[in-house]
Amino acid sequence: MRATVIHGPSDIRIEEVPEPVVQRPTDAVVRVVNACICGSDLWAYRGVAARQAGQRIGHEFIGVVESVGSEVRDFRPGDFVVAPFVWSDGTCDFCRGGLQTSCPHGGFWGEIGSDGGQGEAVRVPYADGTLVALPKETMGEEKLLPAMLALSDVMSTGHHAAVSADVRPGDTVAVVGDGAVGLCGVLAARRLGADRIIAFGRHEARTAIARTFGATDVIAERGEAAVAELKELTGGQGAHAVLEAVGTEEAMRTAISIARDGGAVGYVGVPHGGSAGVDIGQMFGRNVSLRGGVAPARAYIPELLKDVLSGALDPGPVFDRTTDLAGVPEGYRAMESRSALKVRIIP
Amino acid sequence: MRATVIHGPSDIRIEEVPEPVVQRPTDAVVRVVNACICGSDLWAYRGVAARQAGQRIGHEFIGVVESVGSEVRDFRPGDFVVAPFVWSDGTCDFCRGGLQTSCPHGGFWGEIGSDGGQGEAVRVPYADGTLVALPKETMGEEKLLPAMLALSDVMSTGHHAAVSADVRPGDTVAVVGDGAVGLCGVLAARRLGADRIIAFGRHEARTAIARTFGATDVIAERGEAAVAELKELTGGQGAHAVLEAVGTEEAMRTAISIARDGGAVGYVGVPHGGSAGVDIGQMFGRNVSLRGGVAPARAYIPELLKDVLSGALDPGPVFDRTTDLAGVPEGYRAMESRSALKVRIIP
Repeated sequence: MRATVIHGPSDIRIEEVPEPVVQRPTDAVVRVVNACICGSDLWAYRGVAARQAGQRIGHEFIGVVESVGSEVRDFRPGDFVVAPFVWSDGTCDFCRGGLQTSCPHGGFWGEIGSDGGQGEAVRVPYADGTLVALPKETMGEEKLLPAMLALSDVMSTGHHAAVSADVRPGDTVAVVGDGAVGLCGVLAARRLGADRIIAFGRHEARTAIARTFGATDVIAERGEAAVAELKELTGGQGAHAVLEAVGTEEAMRTAISIARDGGAVGYVGVPHGGSAGVDIGQMFGRNVSLRGGVAPARAYIPELLKDVLSGALDPGPVFDRTTDLAGVPEGYRAMESRSALKVRIIP
Repeated sequence: MRATVIHGPSDIRIEEVPEPVVQRPTDAVVRVVNACICGSDLWAYRGVAARQAGQRIGHEFIGVVESVGSEVRDFRPGDFVVAPFVWSDGTCDFCRGGLQTSCPHGGFWGEIGSDGGQGEAVRVPYADGTLVALPKETMGEEKLLPAMLALSDVMSTGHHAAVSADVRPGDTVAVVGDGAVGLCGVLAARRLGADRIIAFGRHEARTAIARTFGATDVIAERGEAAVAELKELTGGQGAHAVLEAVGTEEAMRTAISIARDGGAVGYVGVPHGGSAGVDIGQMFGRNVSLRGGVAPARAYIPELLKDVLSGALDPGPVFDRTTDLAGVPEGYRAMESRSALKVRIIP
């Protein structure tokens, strides 16, 4: 089969690789229907996150179960499924507590020895603990596929930011980051009842999506000017909840600065380097909290899927380009140059 | 009257100062029955926290109302009261929301233009919003006075750490810091139903108090060795809730390291310098939260006072020395050298 392989910075190739097979009794093999490229894949693409030459890449996919190991109880060939971006055993304390990202048997698609999502098929460890069933009849609904695909990561991650920032009905919420996760954060905040949603961004195509997703205000400034504008919009008080979906020092500094006293920053931007803008002295006197981290998508998918199927939630518009496998390297270039927001792959 | 005045690092004096009087209709004047020296006063004593020569000092007291302004409704002369370490108007959004430390009209005892708690009397701004009534009949109960005095700050702050770290029944809780706040954190964790409480400390008199307050284990090590010992005590997992009651980089680093994945650090140690040990990269993958800050004691005192009066809660043992005003400079020296844990003042 063919899959996406990373050989080094800016070196993404589509290669012939071995067909995945069930190796352990808890495995399933899933034929990929849709996959996509994530903003976090760009850290590897840029060479910031280290990868071995020849590692697979991609961690978001929906697909059809092709074969299952002897101990898989919940899935059989032909089932339609979505995979969260981390696999997990489904039985440990962390999995049962809803923090599947801390499962001691868990792992991340594309890590050494595993398949990546950006390929024709994937061997899924701990299928029962990892996969979530999608209704079979949705397989042909082209309009629903992008929304269900987004549950793999960006929609669940945006939701994690909103839950971590403790968004409540009536709140004023600020969203730092205009990538797919930030935009899904806007959706999540609206879904949780935010009254006012202030999105940060200057890229017009993205802020347009933010508005359709529920943003009531958009701030194009950055740094101190952005902080000042948000303060003015909120009568000097700041936002009850701030969603940080970038991971840079500047973004974190902004996020903490614009939180209302007693408010919380839900951080889901993958941090790059040390304290990444966290100034505890700035948080202390104002009782600003910092919650979040890597999103336990597996815990959130069932709840979010219900709303996707009912039509109440549609993160599909974060995909602004579709490609086949051959177009994946160009998809990375487009996302790196910000000419594409998020690229969907139909292998 | 006489009051404690700070003139510079290590220069604490008892001086004759003007008698406080009602200046605004919302003021009360309170004659101090008991005050005390706080670990955080030592930052000024050491010259780390800047003070103008001649500033008052002390922010914890119980006392008797002597006079009230025309708009004070809830108190009258003769009432017995406790003051939280911050005054607050009692009517703003933050006060009504229980975050009185963010009241725009609030202030900290001893700041320029205000009285400090370590004196014979104090002018209390916004008496209705600030003071909490104590039962008059407790005024003569020498055993209760230290416990009620501790509500001013250390017991409320320890409670804030426990609430911020989301201590729940059955939890394993770690407490970093063996000062009065850390010890009160042990009490607070027990009160909230913690099953196991692991206190960090090597000062035997203090760890003995920690044990009587409910600590089930004591770790004398520091840094990496302390982290390793806690991990061993918790089967490798860490503590559900960590109370950080020091404020140094090392303490914060330890606190984050020993939190269980998905757990929280409740931070109440006054931070000194920048990011103070917060490594967001270390928190991200494990979904460790950071909550806390300056404790809204005013919000907690009524609830904690009930337990003090019923005998269920007694933070009194954090006071291991009592002095009159003349002995206050020696009290600072004793606390600075750690020969006293916390000094109570009977002016």
